[in-house]
Amino acid sequence: MIERLAIVGVGLIGGSLGLALRRAGAVREIVGVGRSSENLELARARGIIDRYTSDPREGVRDADVVFIATPAQTVVGVAEAMYDALRRDAVVTDGASTKSHIAAALRARYGGEGPAFVPGHPIAGTEKSGAGAAFAELFDGRRTILTPEEQTPPAAVERVRAMWTAAGAEVEIMSPQRHDAVFAAVSHLPHAVAFALVETVSRLQHDAGLPILRYAAGGFKDFTRIASSDPVMWRDIALDNRDELLRALHAYARQLADLTALVEAGDAAGLEAYFARAKATRDGVVNPERT
Amino acid sequence: MIERLAIVGVGLIGGSLGLALRRAGAVREIVGVGRSSENLELARARGIIDRYTSDPREGVRDADVVFIATPAQTVVGVAEAMYDALRRDAVVTDGASTKSHIAAALRARYGGEGPAFVPGHPIAGTEKSGAGAAFAELFDGRRTILTPEEQTPPAAVERVRAMWTAAGAEVEIMSPQRHDAVFAAVSHLPHAVAFALVETVSRLQHDAGLPILRYAAGGFKDFTRIASSDPVMWRDIALDNRDELLRALHAYARQLADLTALVEAGDAAGLEAYFARAKATRDGVVNPERT
Repeated sequence: MIERLAIVGVGLIGGSLGLALRRAGAVREIVGVGRSSENLELARARGIIDRYTSDPREGVRDADVVFIATPAQTVVGVAEAMYDALRRDAVVTDGASTKSHIAAALRARYGGEGPAFVPGHPIAGTEKSGAGAAFAELFDGRRTILTPEEQTPPAAVERVRAMWTAAGAEVEIMSPQRHDAVFAAVSHLPHAVAFALVETVSRLQHDAGLPILRYAAGGFKDFTRIASSDPVMWRDIALDNRDELLRALHAYARQLADLTALVEAGDAAGLEAYFARAKATRDGVVNPERT
Repeated sequence: MIERLAIVGVGLIGGSLGLALRRAGAVREIVGVGRSSENLELARARGIIDRYTSDPREGVRDADVVFIATPAQTVVGVAEAMYDALRRDAVVTDGASTKSHIAAALRARYGGEGPAFVPGHPIAGTEKSGAGAAFAELFDGRRTILTPEEQTPPAAVERVRAMWTAAGAEVEIMSPQRHDAVFAAVSHLPHAVAFALVETVSRLQHDAGLPILRYAAGGFKDFTRIASSDPVMWRDIALDNRDELLRALHAYARQLADLTALVEAGDAAGLEAYFARAKATRDGVVNPERT
Protein backbone atom coordinates (compact mmCIF):
# COMPACT_ATOMS: atom_id res chain seq x y z
CA MET A 1 0.00 0.00 0.00
CA ILE A 2 1.28 3.46 -0.92
CA GLU A 3 0.35 5.94 1.78
CA ARG A 4 0.92 9.10 -0.21
CA LEU A 5 1.73 9.09 -3.90
CA ALA A 6 2.86 12.30 -5.56
CA ILE A 7 2.32 12.42 -9.33
CA VAL A 8 4.29 15.16 -11.05
CA GLY A 9 2.57 15.71 -14.39
CA VAL A 10 -1.02 14.45 -14.24
CA GLY A 11 -1.49 13.71 -17.94
CA LEU A 12 -2.40 10.52 -19.78
CA ILE A 13 0.36 8.44 -18.14
CA GLY A 14 0.42 10.02 -14.68
CA GLY A 15 -3.37 10.22 -14.46
CA SER A 16 -3.86 6.65 -15.67
CA LEU A 17 -1.42 5.36 -13.04
CA GLY A 18 -3.46 7.15 -10.37
CA LEU A 19 -6.71 5.62 -11.63
CA ALA A 20 -5.17 2.16 -11.93
CA LEU A 21 -3.80 2.25 -8.38
CA ARG A 22 -7.15 3.46 -7.01
CA ARG A 23 -8.88 0.63 -8.89
CA ALA A 24 -6.50 -1.80 -7.12
CA GLY A 25 -6.97 -0.15 -3.74
CA ALA A 26 -3.19 0.22 -3.67
CA VAL A 27 -2.93 3.87 -2.69
CA ARG A 28 -4.38 5.96 0.15
CA GLU A 29 -3.78 9.52 -1.01
CA ILE A 30 -2.64 11.04 -4.30
CA VAL A 31 -1.20 14.54 -4.63
CA GLY A 32 -1.01 16.04 -8.11
CA VAL A 33 1.75 18.44 -9.14
CA GLY A 34 1.59 20.47 -12.33
CA ARG A 35 1.54 23.86 -13.95
CA SER A 36 -1.98 23.91 -15.40
CA SER A 37 -4.55 24.40 -12.64
CA GLU A 38 -7.23 23.67 -15.24
CA ASN A 39 -5.80 20.21 -15.89
CA LEU A 40 -5.26 19.56 -12.18
CA GLU A 41 -8.81 20.64 -11.38
CA LEU A 42 -10.05 18.21 -13.99
CA ALA A 43 -7.88 15.48 -12.46
CA ARG A 44 -9.42 16.18 -9.05
CA ALA A 45 -12.94 16.25 -10.48
CA ARG A 46 -12.28 12.86 -12.10
CA GLY A 47 -11.11 11.43 -8.77
CA ILE A 48 -7.55 10.87 -9.99
CA ILE A 49 -5.97 13.07 -7.31
CA ASP A 50 -7.12 14.24 -3.89
CA ARG A 51 -5.43 17.64 -3.98
CA TYR A 52 -2.84 19.50 -6.01
CA THR A 53 -0.13 22.13 -6.01
CA SER A 54 2.08 23.82 -8.59
CA ASP A 55 5.14 23.50 -6.33
CA PRO A 56 6.95 20.13 -6.66
CA ARG A 57 8.67 20.56 -3.27
CA GLU A 58 5.34 21.15 -1.62
CA GLY A 59 3.74 18.31 -3.55
CA VAL A 60 6.26 15.61 -2.63
CA ARG A 61 6.31 16.42 1.10
CA ASP A 62 5.77 13.24 3.14
CA ALA A 63 5.13 11.21 0.00
CA ASP A 64 6.46 7.65 0.19
CA VAL A 65 6.39 7.26 -3.60
CA VAL A 66 6.81 9.92 -6.29
CA PHE A 67 6.08 9.37 -9.99
CA ILE A 68 7.55 11.90 -12.41
CA ALA A 69 5.49 11.80 -15.60
CA THR A 70 6.68 15.02 -17.18
CA PRO A 71 8.35 15.26 -20.64
CA ALA A 72 11.66 13.36 -20.80
CA GLN A 73 13.83 16.47 -21.01
CA THR A 74 12.43 17.81 -17.73
CA VAL A 75 12.69 14.65 -15.59
CA VAL A 76 16.26 15.27 -14.40
CA GLY A 77 15.55 18.90 -13.46
CA VAL A 78 12.37 17.97 -11.61
CA ALA A 79 14.10 15.14 -9.73
CA GLU A 80 17.03 17.41 -8.80
CA ALA A 81 14.79 20.23 -7.61
CA MET A 82 12.62 18.09 -5.34
CA TYR A 83 15.44 16.11 -3.74
CA ASP A 84 15.81 18.13 -0.53
CA ALA A 85 12.07 18.15 0.11
CA LEU A 86 11.73 14.34 -0.06
CA ARG A 87 11.34 11.98 2.86
CA ARG A 88 14.59 10.13 3.53
CA ASP A 89 12.93 6.83 2.64
CA ALA A 90 11.03 8.12 -0.39
CA VAL A 91 11.20 6.22 -3.68
CA VAL A 92 11.11 8.28 -6.88
CA THR A 93 10.48 6.82 -10.33
CA ASP A 94 9.70 8.23 -13.77
CA GLY A 95 8.01 7.29 -17.02
CA ALA A 96 10.30 8.71 -19.71
CA SER A 97 10.97 6.63 -22.82
CA THR A 98 14.77 7.02 -22.74
CA LYS A 99 16.68 5.83 -19.69
CA SER A 100 20.51 5.96 -19.90
CA HIS A 101 20.57 9.74 -19.99
CA ILE A 102 18.33 10.08 -16.93
CA ALA A 103 20.01 7.29 -14.97
CA ALA A 104 23.45 8.84 -15.55
CA ALA A 105 22.34 12.35 -14.65
CA LEU A 106 20.78 11.30 -11.35
CA ARG A 107 23.37 8.69 -10.35
CA ALA A 108 25.36 10.99 -8.06
CA ARG A 109 22.46 12.73 -6.34
CA TYR A 110 20.29 9.69 -5.67
CA GLY A 111 23.10 7.18 -5.33
CA GLY A 112 23.74 7.21 -1.60
CA GLU A 113 21.62 7.04 1.52
CA GLY A 114 18.33 8.86 1.43
CA PRO A 115 15.71 8.97 -1.33
CA ALA A 116 16.12 6.40 -4.12
CA PHE A 117 15.52 6.85 -7.83
CA VAL A 118 14.33 3.91 -9.96
CA PRO A 119 14.20 4.78 -13.69
CA GLY A 120 11.11 3.34 -15.36
CA HIS A 121 9.31 3.19 -18.70
CA PRO A 122 5.69 2.08 -18.99
CA ILE A 123 5.19 0.86 -22.57
CA ALA A 124 1.74 2.31 -23.05
CA GLY A 125 0.09 5.37 -24.47
CA THR A 126 -2.50 6.68 -26.86
CA GLU A 127 -2.48 9.65 -29.17
CA LYS A 128 -4.39 11.69 -26.60
CA SER A 129 -2.96 13.64 -23.69
CA GLY A 130 -4.00 15.36 -20.48
CA ALA A 131 -5.86 14.22 -17.38
CA GLY A 132 -9.07 14.00 -19.38
CA ALA A 133 -7.58 11.18 -21.49
CA ALA A 134 -6.46 9.08 -18.49
CA PHE A 135 -8.12 5.71 -17.86
CA ALA A 136 -7.54 2.94 -15.33
CA GLU A 137 -6.98 0.17 -17.90
CA LEU A 138 -4.12 1.83 -19.81
CA PHE A 139 -1.41 -0.44 -18.39
CA ASP A 140 -3.36 -3.71 -18.21
CA GLY A 141 -1.22 -6.45 -19.73
CA ARG A 142 1.35 -3.92 -21.01
CA ARG A 143 4.99 -3.98 -19.99
CA THR A 144 6.69 -1.54 -17.68
CA ILE A 145 10.46 -1.69 -17.79
CA LEU A 146 12.53 -0.68 -14.77
CA THR A 147 16.21 0.09 -15.27
CA PRO A 148 17.88 0.18 -11.85
CA GLU A 149 21.65 0.45 -11.59
CA GLU A 150 24.05 -1.37 -9.28
CA GLN A 151 23.70 1.14 -6.49
CA THR A 152 19.89 1.28 -6.62
CA PRO A 153 18.53 -0.26 -3.38
CA PRO A 154 16.68 -3.52 -4.15
CA ALA A 155 13.90 -2.53 -1.75
CA ALA A 156 13.22 0.60 -3.81
CA VAL A 157 13.04 -1.47 -7.01
CA GLU A 158 10.59 -3.86 -5.34
CA ARG A 159 8.48 -0.92 -4.20
CA VAL A 160 8.16 0.39 -7.77
CA ARG A 161 7.64 -3.09 -9.17
CA ALA A 162 4.76 -3.65 -6.75
CA MET A 163 3.22 -0.34 -7.77
CA TRP A 164 3.23 -1.17 -11.47
CA THR A 165 2.04 -4.71 -10.86
CA ALA A 166 -0.90 -3.31 -8.89
CA ALA A 167 -1.58 -0.98 -11.83
CA GLY A 168 -1.95 -4.00 -14.12
CA ALA A 169 1.44 -3.95 -15.86
CA GLU A 170 3.97 -6.74 -16.33
CA VAL A 171 7.26 -5.51 -14.92
CA GLU A 172 10.64 -6.33 -16.45
CA ILE A 173 14.09 -5.30 -15.32
CA MET A 174 17.02 -4.46 -17.58
CA SER A 175 19.95 -2.07 -17.65
CA PRO A 176 19.35 1.49 -18.92
CA GLN A 177 21.79 0.82 -21.78
CA ARG A 178 19.98 -2.32 -22.88
CA HIS A 179 16.65 -0.54 -22.64
CA ASP A 180 17.83 2.27 -24.88
CA ALA A 181 19.31 -0.12 -27.45
CA VAL A 182 16.08 -2.13 -27.60
CA PHE A 183 13.84 0.92 -27.93
CA ALA A 184 16.11 2.61 -30.44
CA ALA A 185 15.43 -0.38 -32.68
CA VAL A 186 11.80 -1.07 -31.96
CA SER A 187 10.42 2.43 -31.46
CA HIS A 188 12.81 5.30 -32.16
CA LEU A 189 14.04 3.98 -35.51
CA PRO A 190 10.51 3.32 -36.82
CA HIS A 191 9.53 6.86 -35.92
CA ALA A 192 12.58 8.30 -37.69
CA VAL A 193 11.80 6.10 -40.71
CA ALA A 194 8.21 7.34 -40.81
CA PHE A 195 9.15 11.00 -40.47
CA ALA A 196 11.69 10.62 -43.30
CA LEU A 197 9.13 8.81 -45.47
CA VAL A 198 6.57 11.57 -45.15
CA GLU A 199 9.23 14.16 -45.94
CA THR A 200 10.31 12.19 -49.01
CA VAL A 201 6.81 11.91 -50.39
CA SER A 202 6.21 15.58 -49.75
CA ARG A 203 9.47 16.44 -51.52
CA LEU A 204 8.71 14.19 -54.50
CA GLN A 205 5.34 15.84 -54.79
CA HIS A 206 6.96 19.26 -54.81
CA ASP A 207 9.90 18.49 -57.11
CA ALA A 208 8.09 16.34 -59.63
CA GLY A 209 4.86 18.31 -59.60
CA LEU A 210 3.01 15.07 -58.98
CA PRO A 211 -0.27 15.08 -57.03
CA ILE A 212 1.10 12.31 -54.87
CA LEU A 213 -0.50 13.09 -51.56
CA ARG A 214 -3.91 13.05 -53.23
CA TYR A 215 -3.41 9.32 -53.75
CA ALA A 216 -2.12 8.57 -50.28
CA ALA A 217 -4.46 5.73 -49.49
CA GLY A 218 -5.16 3.66 -46.40
CA GLY A 219 -1.78 1.94 -46.31
CA PHE A 220 0.22 5.15 -46.39
CA LYS A 221 -1.94 6.70 -43.69
CA ASP A 222 -1.65 3.70 -41.38
CA PHE A 223 2.02 3.43 -42.07
CA THR A 224 2.76 7.05 -41.27
CA ARG A 225 0.44 7.46 -38.30
CA ILE A 226 3.44 7.68 -36.01
CA ALA A 227 4.81 10.59 -38.06
CA SER A 228 1.92 12.49 -36.51
CA SER A 229 3.57 12.24 -33.08
CA ASP A 230 4.67 15.26 -31.06
CA PRO A 231 7.77 16.85 -32.70
CA VAL A 232 9.12 18.14 -29.39
CA MET A 233 8.90 14.75 -27.73
CA TRP A 234 10.68 13.12 -30.64
CA ARG A 235 13.31 15.83 -30.79
CA ASP A 236 14.09 15.04 -27.15
CA ILE A 237 14.15 11.28 -27.68
CA ALA A 238 16.53 11.72 -30.62
CA LEU A 239 18.82 13.86 -28.47
CA ASP A 240 18.63 11.70 -25.34
CA ASN A 241 19.14 8.42 -27.15
CA ARG A 242 21.46 9.79 -29.83
CA ASP A 243 24.09 7.04 -29.87
CA GLU A 244 21.72 4.10 -30.02
CA LEU A 245 19.47 5.82 -32.54
CA LEU A 246 22.49 6.52 -34.75
CA ARG A 247 23.52 2.88 -34.53
CA ALA A 248 20.03 1.84 -35.62
CA LEU A 249 19.88 4.47 -38.38
CA HIS A 250 23.19 3.28 -39.81
CA ALA A 251 22.04 -0.34 -39.74
CA TYR A 252 18.85 0.71 -41.48
CA ALA A 253 20.69 2.68 -44.15
CA ARG A 254 22.71 -0.46 -44.93
CA GLN A 255 19.56 -2.57 -45.24
CA LEU A 256 17.99 0.01 -47.51
CA ALA A 257 21.12 0.10 -49.66
CA ASP A 258 21.03 -3.70 -49.95
CA LEU A 259 17.40 -3.62 -51.04
CA THR A 260 18.07 -0.78 -53.48
CA ALA A 261 20.90 -2.79 -55.02
CA LEU A 262 18.54 -5.74 -55.56
CA VAL A 263 16.02 -3.45 -57.30
CA GLU A 264 18.78 -1.87 -59.38
CA ALA A 265 20.05 -5.28 -60.48
CA GLY A 266 16.54 -6.53 -61.21
CA ASP A 267 17.38 -9.53 -59.02
CA ALA A 268 14.05 -11.38 -58.91
CA ALA A 269 15.19 -14.21 -56.66
CA GLY A 270 17.00 -11.84 -54.32
CA LEU A 271 13.98 -9.54 -54.03
CA GLU A 272 11.59 -12.38 -53.34
CA ALA A 273 13.92 -13.82 -50.69
CA TYR A 274 14.34 -10.41 -49.07
CA PHE A 275 10.59 -9.76 -48.91
CA ALA A 276 9.83 -13.31 -47.75
CA ARG A 277 12.38 -13.03 -44.92
CA ALA A 278 10.90 -9.74 -43.73
CA LYS A 279 7.37 -11.14 -43.95
CA ALA A 280 8.34 -14.20 -41.90
CA THR A 281 9.97 -12.02 -39.25
CA ARG A 282 7.02 -9.66 -39.09
CA ASP A 283 4.40 -12.41 -39.00
CA GLY A 284 6.44 -14.13 -36.30
CA VAL A 285 6.32 -10.99 -34.15
CA VAL A 286 2.62 -10.54 -34.55
CA ASN A 287 1.69 -14.21 -34.33
CA PRO A 288 4.52 -15.79 -32.32
CA GLU A 289 2.72 -19.11 -32.11
CA ARG A 290 3.19 -19.56 -35.83
CA THR A 291 6.97 -19.39 -35.78
CA MET B 1 -24.92 -2.40 -69.93
CA ILE B 2 -22.26 -5.05 -70.45
CA GLU B 3 -23.72 -8.03 -72.29
CA ARG B 4 -21.00 -10.53 -71.46
CA LEU B 5 -18.16 -9.78 -69.10
CA ALA B 6 -15.23 -12.18 -68.90
CA ILE B 7 -13.25 -12.02 -65.65
CA VAL B 8 -9.86 -13.69 -65.87
CA GLY B 9 -8.83 -14.36 -62.28
CA VAL B 10 -11.90 -14.45 -60.05
CA GLY B 11 -10.23 -13.47 -56.77
CA LEU B 12 -10.81 -10.59 -54.40
CA ILE B 13 -10.57 -7.91 -57.10
CA GLY B 14 -12.12 -9.78 -60.01
CA GLY B 15 -14.87 -11.29 -57.88
CA SER B 16 -15.71 -7.99 -56.21
CA LEU B 17 -16.04 -6.29 -59.59
CA GLY B 18 -18.51 -8.97 -60.63
CA LEU B 19 -20.57 -8.53 -57.47
CA ALA B 20 -20.49 -4.72 -57.74
CA LEU B 21 -21.67 -4.78 -61.35
CA ARG B 22 -24.47 -7.22 -60.50
CA ARG B 23 -25.51 -4.95 -57.65
CA ALA B 24 -25.73 -2.09 -60.16
CA GLY B 25 -27.59 -4.19 -62.73
CA ALA B 26 -24.82 -3.23 -65.13
CA VAL B 27 -24.02 -6.69 -66.54
CA ARG B 28 -26.06 -9.45 -68.11
CA GLU B 29 -23.69 -12.43 -68.02
CA ILE B 30 -20.35 -13.05 -66.35
CA VAL B 31 -17.92 -15.77 -67.42
CA GLY B 32 -15.13 -16.67 -65.02
CA VAL B 33 -11.71 -17.83 -66.22
CA GLY B 34 -9.17 -19.39 -63.90
CA ARG B 35 -7.04 -22.37 -63.02
CA SER B 36 -8.63 -23.44 -59.74
CA SER B 37 -11.99 -25.11 -60.36
CA GLU B 38 -12.55 -25.06 -56.60
CA ASN B 39 -12.29 -21.26 -56.54
CA LEU B 40 -14.42 -20.92 -59.68
CA GLU B 41 -17.07 -23.25 -58.26
CA LEU B 42 -17.17 -21.09 -55.14
CA ALA B 43 -17.51 -17.98 -57.32
CA ARG B 44 -20.47 -19.57 -59.12
CA ALA B 45 -22.06 -20.68 -55.86
CA ARG B 46 -21.76 -17.11 -54.57
CA GLY B 47 -23.46 -15.78 -57.72
CA ILE B 48 -20.38 -13.91 -58.88
CA ILE B 49 -20.15 -15.72 -62.21
CA ASP B 50 -22.68 -17.62 -64.32
CA ARG B 51 -20.26 -20.18 -65.71
CA TYR B 52 -16.53 -20.78 -65.97
CA THR B 53 -13.71 -22.29 -67.95
CA SER B 54 -9.98 -22.78 -67.52
CA ASP B 55 -9.32 -21.71 -71.14
CA PRO B 56 -8.97 -17.92 -71.56
CA ARG B 57 -9.71 -18.13 -75.30
CA GLU B 58 -12.89 -20.04 -74.60
CA GLY B 59 -13.80 -17.68 -71.77
CA VAL B 60 -13.52 -14.43 -73.70
CA ARG B 61 -15.49 -15.63 -76.72
CA ASP B 62 -18.22 -13.11 -77.59
CA ALA B 63 -17.43 -11.05 -74.49
CA ASP B 64 -17.83 -7.31 -75.03
CA VAL B 65 -15.68 -6.50 -71.97
CA VAL B 66 -12.80 -8.52 -70.48
CA PHE B 67 -11.24 -7.81 -67.08
CA ILE B 68 -7.81 -9.36 -66.42
CA ALA B 69 -7.36 -9.59 -62.65
CA THR B 70 -4.42 -11.98 -62.56
CA PRO B 71 -1.03 -11.18 -60.93
CA ALA B 72 0.77 -8.27 -62.60
CA GLN B 73 3.50 -10.38 -64.18
CA THR B 74 0.94 -12.51 -66.02
CA VAL B 75 -1.28 -9.76 -67.46
CA VAL B 76 0.72 -9.26 -70.66
CA GLY B 77 0.88 -12.99 -71.42
CA VAL B 78 -2.84 -13.44 -70.79
CA ALA B 79 -3.74 -10.44 -72.95
CA GLU B 80 -1.47 -11.66 -75.78
CA ALA B 81 -2.81 -15.19 -75.67
CA MET B 82 -6.48 -14.22 -75.83
CA TYR B 83 -6.15 -11.60 -78.57
CA ASP B 84 -7.18 -13.74 -81.53
CA ALA B 85 -10.21 -15.11 -79.72
CA LEU B 86 -11.66 -11.68 -78.90
CA ARG B 87 -14.55 -9.97 -80.63
CA ARG B 88 -13.29 -7.21 -82.93
CA ASP B 89 -15.04 -4.60 -80.81
CA ALA B 90 -14.08 -6.10 -77.41
CA VAL B 91 -12.58 -3.87 -74.75
CA VAL B 92 -9.97 -5.44 -72.47
CA THR B 93 -8.78 -3.88 -69.21
CA ASP B 94 -6.72 -5.00 -66.24
CA GLY B 95 -6.23 -4.32 -62.53
CA ALA B 96 -2.46 -4.52 -62.03
CA SER B 97 -0.78 -1.97 -59.78
CA THR B 98 2.00 -1.06 -62.23
CA LYS B 99 1.07 0.33 -65.62
CA SER B 100 3.94 1.56 -67.84
CA HIS B 101 5.33 -1.93 -68.29
CA ILE B 102 1.97 -3.39 -69.33
CA ALA B 103 0.99 -0.46 -71.53
CA ALA B 104 4.31 -0.64 -73.39
CA ALA B 105 4.18 -4.41 -73.85
CA LEU B 106 0.66 -4.38 -75.31
CA ARG B 107 0.99 -1.19 -77.38
CA ALA B 108 1.76 -2.92 -80.67
CA ARG B 109 -0.74 -5.73 -80.42
CA TYR B 110 -3.74 -3.73 -79.23
CA GLY B 111 -2.79 -0.45 -80.93
CA GLY B 112 -4.64 -0.74 -84.22
CA GLU B 113 -8.14 -1.67 -85.33
CA GLY B 114 -9.77 -4.50 -83.43
CA PRO B 115 -9.89 -5.16 -79.68
CA ALA B 116 -8.77 -2.28 -77.45
CA PHE B 117 -6.75 -2.47 -74.26
CA VAL B 118 -7.29 0.11 -71.50
CA PRO B 119 -4.79 -0.27 -68.62
CA GLY B 120 -6.42 0.21 -65.22
CA HIS B 121 -5.69 0.14 -61.52
CA PRO B 122 -8.45 -0.06 -58.92
CA ILE B 123 -7.02 1.36 -55.67
CA ALA B 124 -8.66 -1.12 -53.35
CA GLY B 125 -7.91 -4.36 -51.62
CA THR B 126 -7.82 -6.17 -48.34
CA GLU B 127 -5.37 -8.65 -46.90
CA LYS B 128 -7.62 -11.52 -48.00
CA SER B 129 -7.72 -13.19 -51.37
CA GLY B 130 -9.84 -15.54 -53.45
CA ALA B 131 -13.47 -15.53 -54.58
CA GLY B 132 -14.58 -16.16 -51.01
CA ALA B 133 -13.19 -12.78 -49.96
CA ALA B 134 -14.97 -10.80 -52.71
CA PHE B 135 -17.69 -8.32 -51.76
CA ALA B 136 -19.80 -5.85 -53.75
CA GLU B 137 -18.76 -2.76 -51.76
CA LEU B 138 -14.98 -3.09 -52.21
CA PHE B 139 -14.72 -0.23 -54.71
CA ASP B 140 -17.32 2.12 -53.24
CA GLY B 141 -15.81 5.59 -53.01
CA ARG B 142 -12.34 4.29 -53.92
CA ARG B 143 -10.42 5.49 -56.95
CA THR B 144 -9.80 3.51 -60.10
CA ILE B 145 -7.10 4.96 -62.32
CA LEU B 146 -7.16 4.35 -66.07
CA THR B 147 -3.99 4.97 -68.05
CA PRO B 148 -4.89 5.04 -71.75
CA GLU B 149 -2.27 6.08 -74.31
CA GLU B 150 -2.61 8.29 -77.35
CA GLN B 151 -3.74 5.49 -79.62
CA THR B 152 -6.31 4.07 -77.18
CA PRO B 153 -9.80 4.63 -78.68
CA PRO B 154 -11.75 7.13 -76.52
CA ALA B 155 -14.87 4.97 -76.82
CA ALA B 156 -13.00 2.07 -75.16
CA VAL B 157 -11.85 4.32 -72.31
CA GLU B 158 -15.44 5.47 -71.81
CA ARG B 159 -16.63 1.88 -71.76
CA VAL B 160 -14.21 0.99 -68.96
CA ARG B 161 -14.89 4.22 -67.12
CA ALA B 162 -18.63 3.46 -67.15
CA MET B 163 -17.96 -0.04 -65.82
CA TRP B 164 -15.95 1.21 -62.83
CA THR B 165 -18.39 4.01 -62.14
CA ALA B 166 -21.21 1.46 -62.04
CA ALA B 167 -19.08 -0.58 -59.62
CA GLY B 168 -18.95 2.39 -57.23
CA ALA B 169 -15.46 3.72 -57.99
CA GLU B 170 -14.34 7.24 -58.83
CA VAL B 171 -12.46 7.07 -62.11
CA GLU B 172 -9.40 9.18 -62.89
CA ILE B 173 -7.32 9.27 -66.04
CA MET B 174 -3.56 9.77 -66.19
CA SER B 175 -0.62 8.55 -68.25
CA PRO B 176 0.98 5.20 -67.34
CA GLN B 177 4.24 7.02 -66.53
CA ARG B 178 2.56 9.47 -64.17
CA HIS B 179 0.66 6.62 -62.52
CA ASP B 180 3.84 4.69 -61.87
CA ALA B 181 5.67 7.73 -60.48
CA VAL B 182 2.80 8.51 -58.11
CA PHE B 183 2.47 4.96 -56.85
CA ALA B 184 6.21 4.46 -56.52
CA ALA B 185 6.10 7.29 -53.99
CA VAL B 186 2.86 6.61 -52.22
CA SER B 187 2.77 2.82 -52.19
CA HIS B 188 5.87 1.05 -53.49
CA LEU B 189 8.39 3.11 -51.50
CA PRO B 190 6.47 2.69 -48.21
CA HIS B 191 6.44 -1.06 -48.75
CA ALA B 192 10.18 -1.14 -49.44
CA VAL B 193 10.76 1.00 -46.35
CA ALA B 194 8.71 -1.35 -44.19
CA PHE B 195 10.43 -4.48 -45.50
CA ALA B 196 13.84 -2.90 -44.83
CA LEU B 197 12.76 -1.82 -41.36
CA VAL B 198 11.71 -5.30 -40.36
CA GLU B 199 14.96 -6.70 -41.72
CA THR B 200 16.95 -4.12 -39.76
CA VAL B 201 15.25 -4.88 -36.48
CA SER B 202 15.68 -8.59 -37.06
CA ARG B 203 19.38 -8.05 -37.82
CA LEU B 204 19.94 -5.83 -34.77
CA GLN B 205 18.31 -8.50 -32.65
CA HIS B 206 20.62 -11.11 -34.08
CA ASP B 207 23.86 -9.11 -34.02
CA ALA B 208 23.42 -7.41 -30.67
CA GLY B 209 21.77 -10.35 -28.95
CA LEU B 210 18.98 -8.03 -27.88
CA PRO B 211 15.47 -9.41 -27.34
CA ILE B 212 14.15 -6.63 -29.53
CA LEU B 213 11.22 -8.33 -31.21
CA ARG B 214 9.85 -9.23 -27.81
CA TYR B 215 9.24 -5.54 -27.24
CA ALA B 216 7.74 -4.84 -30.63
CA ALA B 217 4.62 -3.07 -29.44
CA GLY B 218 1.48 -1.80 -31.12
CA GLY B 219 3.23 0.95 -33.05
CA PHE B 220 5.79 -1.32 -34.64
CA LYS B 221 3.12 -3.83 -35.61
CA ASP B 222 0.87 -1.23 -37.21
CA PHE B 223 3.81 0.36 -38.92
CA THR B 224 5.06 -2.87 -40.44
CA ARG B 225 1.71 -4.43 -41.31
CA ILE B 226 2.48 -3.88 -44.97
CA ALA B 227 5.70 -5.87 -44.60
CA SER B 228 3.38 -8.83 -44.27
CA SER B 229 2.32 -8.46 -47.91
CA ASP B 230 2.87 -11.14 -50.52
CA PRO B 231 6.61 -11.37 -51.37
CA VAL B 232 5.94 -12.52 -54.95
CA MET B 233 3.59 -9.62 -55.66
CA TRP B 234 6.11 -7.12 -54.31
CA ARG B 235 8.98 -8.75 -56.16
CA ASP B 236 7.00 -8.21 -59.37
CA ILE B 237 6.09 -4.63 -58.52
CA ALA B 238 9.74 -3.85 -57.77
CA LEU B 239 10.76 -5.34 -61.12
CA ASP B 240 7.95 -3.77 -63.17
CA ASN B 241 8.30 -0.31 -61.68
CA ARG B 242 12.06 -0.45 -61.22
CA ASP B 243 13.00 3.01 -62.48
CA GLU B 244 10.41 4.95 -60.52
CA LEU B 245 10.98 2.90 -57.39
CA LEU B 246 14.73 3.55 -57.64
CA ARG B 247 14.09 7.27 -57.99
CA ALA B 248 11.93 7.17 -54.85
CA LEU B 249 14.45 5.02 -52.95
CA HIS B 250 17.26 7.44 -53.76
CA ALA B 251 15.17 10.42 -52.64
CA TYR B 252 14.36 8.55 -49.45
CA ALA B 253 18.01 7.69 -48.76
CA ARG B 254 18.82 11.39 -49.04
CA GLN B 255 16.08 12.33 -46.57
CA LEU B 256 17.27 9.67 -44.17
CA ALA B 257 20.85 10.93 -44.45
CA ASP B 258 19.66 14.48 -43.69
CA LEU B 259 17.81 13.30 -40.61
CA THR B 260 20.76 11.17 -39.50
CA ALA B 261 23.04 14.21 -39.81
CA LEU B 262 20.70 16.22 -37.56
CA VAL B 263 20.78 13.45 -34.94
CA GLU B 264 24.56 13.18 -35.24
CA ALA B 265 24.98 16.93 -34.75
CA GLY B 266 22.53 16.97 -31.85
CA ASP B 267 20.73 19.78 -33.70
CA ALA B 268 17.68 20.35 -31.48
CA ALA B 269 16.12 23.12 -33.58
CA GLY B 270 16.75 21.23 -36.81
CA LEU B 271 15.23 18.01 -35.46
CA GLU B 272 12.15 19.74 -34.15
CA ALA B 273 11.65 21.56 -37.45
CA TYR B 274 12.11 18.32 -39.40
CA PHE B 275 9.59 16.41 -37.29
CA ALA B 276 7.12 19.32 -37.26
CA ARG B 277 7.27 19.58 -41.06
CA ALA B 278 6.60 15.85 -41.48
CA LYS B 279 3.78 15.97 -38.95
CA ALA B 280 2.13 18.91 -40.75
CA THR B 281 2.36 17.09 -44.08
CA ARG B 282 1.01 13.87 -42.64
CA ASP B 283 -1.84 15.53 -40.77
CA GLY B 284 -2.65 17.49 -43.93
CA VAL B 285 -3.01 14.27 -45.90
CA VAL B 286 -5.23 12.63 -43.35
CA ASN B 287 -7.28 15.71 -42.51
CA PRO B 288 -7.04 17.87 -45.63
CA GLU B 289 -9.59 20.33 -44.26
CA ARG B 290 -7.07 21.39 -41.62
CA THR B 291 -4.37 22.50 -44.03
